Amino acid sequence: MAITFELIKQCSKTGARAGRLYTPHGVFETPIFMPVGTQATVKAMSPDELKAMGAGIILSNTYHLYLRPGHELVAEAGGLHGFMHWDRGILTDSGGFQVFSLGPLRKITEEGVAFRSHIDGSKHFLSPEKATEIQMALGADIIMAFDECVPYPAEYDYAKASTERTTRWAERCKKAHTRKDQALFGIVQGGMYKDLRAMSARDLVAMDFPGYAVGGLSVGEPKPLMYEILEYTVPLLPANKPRYLMGVGTPDCLVEGVMYGIDMFDCVFPTRVARNGTVMTSRGKLVVKNAEYARDFRPIDPDCECYTCRNFSRAYIRHLLKAEEIFGLRLTTIHNLHFLLNFMRNMRKAILEDRFLAFRQEFRAQYQLH
Amino acid sequence: MAITFELIKQCSKTGARAGRLYTPHGVFETPIFMPVGTQATVKAMSPDELKAMGAGIILSNTYHLYLRPGHELVAEAGGLHGFMHWDRGILTDSGGFQVFSLGPLRKITEEGVAFRSHIDGSKHFLSPEKATEIQMALGADIIMAFDECVPYPAEYDYAKASTERTTRWAERCKKAHTRKDQALFGIVQGGMYKDLRAMSARDLVAMDFPGYAVGGLSVGEPKPLMYEILEYTVPLLPANKPRYLMGVGTPDCLVEGVMYGIDMFDCVFPTRVARNGTVMTSRGKLVVKNAEYARDFRPIDPDCECYTCRNFSRAYIRHLLKAEEIFGLRLTTIHNLHFLLNFMRNMRKAILEDRFLAFRQEFRAQYQLH
Repeated sequence: MAITFELIKQCSKTGARAGRLYTPHGVFETPIFMPVGTQATVKAMSPDELKAMGAGIILSNTYHLYLRPGHELVAEAGGLHGFMHWDRGILTDSGGFQVFSLGPLRKITEEGVAFRSHIDGSKHFLSPEKATEIQMALGADIIMAFDECVPYPAEYDYAKASTERTTRWAERCKKAHTRKDQALFGIVQGGMYKDLRAMSARDLVAMDFPGYAVGGLSVGEPKPLMYEILEYTVPLLPANKPRYLMGVGTPDCLVEGVMYGIDMFDCVFPTRVARNGTVMTSRGKLVVKNAEYARDFRPIDPDCECYTCRNFSRAYIRHLLKAEEIFGLRLTTIHNLHFLLNFMRNMRKAILEDRFLAFRQEFRAQYQLH
Repeated sequence: MAITFELIKQCSKTGARAGRLYTPHGVFETPIFMPVGTQATVKAMSPDELKAMGAGIILSNTYHLYLRPGHELVAEAGGLHGFMHWDRGILTDSGGFQVFSLGPLRKITEEGVAFRSHIDGSKHFLSPEKATEIQMALGADIIMAFDECVPYPAEYDYAKASTERTTRWAERCKKAHTRKDQALFGIVQGGMYKDLRAMSARDLVAMDFPGYAVGGLSVGEPKPLMYEILEYTVPLLPANKPRYLMGVGTPDCLVEGVMYGIDMFDCVFPTRVARNGTVMTSRGKLVVKNAEYARDFRPIDPDCECYTCRNFSRAYIRHLLKAEEIFGLRLTTIHNLHFLLNFMRNMRKAILEDRFLAFRQEFRAQYQLH
């Protein structure tokens, strides 16, 4: 099997767990946060900077790479690893999420989805087979089944039909997938309906995927509802397989996700807000672009050991952002990714020492959500 | 004296020379190319990347830093060195060039120049005393006298009056300058008129500056005319002082400048064209953004040892540029700066081995200008 998961420690009071993910490009400790490199680059970062902060697996995007530069070109370059000069883990999503987000630009049938490119309006068709073929060409360590992310809110009937189709598509992806050095993960859907989540989980688990994602959360629903569905869904997944919560990456959601037993996360959040001038600290977010930091010569976070905090002040970073200098985006991105990766390492340590609930409590006492 | 210049080797056949510049922030080998960091950052680069490629002195900009974030703020941060975390040499220009480029937004009198900010339209006044005060606050190792860069073309009478005023302003800068750890350089003007160049050089040399710049070249005149004026002007400057040709940085002009006896250069050229997708190689420029490089998996320059060429292909870089990814701008900028710094090192080696003319000949045989 391309990917194996080793469960190292189960929290005695919650679902939280520490593990190890064995991939063809290294062994990675879980719970893990995966930085997003949509277009074969984590925005503003070099592979070496990612390594220096301990990034293990990064995520890249089937939809975007299929359109530009094209998956055949990436395959010629030696796959994504060779193309972008990244020798650690890569996960590609199936492109489903992006295609479905196109709204009026796409049409869904049982066969797949017809859509127009957001770049040049050209016509394309993505099916479970095509999404799998593209992902095999891209050559990531972990690839995802082609699914529909049920929107929120969704009527029960729509959610049911969509979820059943996602299951049929997962079956087709599994048949189409022939690369033994890649792991294909299934994605549990079902919207906000517990019986549909149960149905989806049951059907996908029966197909015996090497890992499972929980999709269709963090799509606009209230956080308590997301947590409720998560708490309900995770125990339906096998304990000996990695569990991946898609599109979630704020510190508060990461803690809750880990508590419910999630091992893997990805989100554009830390890199996107960084480019807008918002950085994370152990006390909450800080909008370093704000005027109040103009003459603040302290680092973003005095306790942080990232390249940014070791060498540069809030005042300098604010100046760079106001002057629209690229280096400002680099510095905030470095800090935010370092912060989150370190946050995950600290959570893992707490799990290993069986004090995860205390960690969560401290975090919630200290971290200002807004 | 803050800056001293040691002449190591004089070419036996041309004016080319190799030397060493001693500054409060290190000793730098000349001829030297100084990357431009207009707003207290060399666009897209980190200080560490600049150091890794052997950059010695960088240039920053009085006009821009005065307007944003303000020179008092920079002074509070420990000067430019502390503010931008750069412990090697810094040179600041006087702001004159930028202010005069504002066109209708500025008005010149004997006292100085009234102008409006290009950022918010606010009113400001820059004089020799003010430009010197700002540069003392910024704290660069080398600062420049406040001058008018005579435009091209210019009537004789205008050029004469302007050049005489620049000389009076240089005198005022010298009086205003009190920091002993900084060197103030004079700037020779005179437009394309040899007698005015002679007058300017004579008057400035009489003031005994620790270094001299040749200004007002590369402002739109044909290259042969620039070379003619340069060849005429440089011998008017003292051999024991560093000579700086402002705003010149294409490989062909660097070779000619060195041949005529210039020690220091700066230009936005390598970083600006990099961001537009043009890179330099030993055979001339290469527009890596072009479609012909879409499937070209070779490095930009197979002979280059920069971070970009060691790790990334033309195809990947082209993809990043087409997708408007920041990392693409970083990779082309790294390559171009590395190329130019290495080019200067090779020229210096040729001078030391007294084979500069052969180096020039080889370069001209190989390098495609267009």
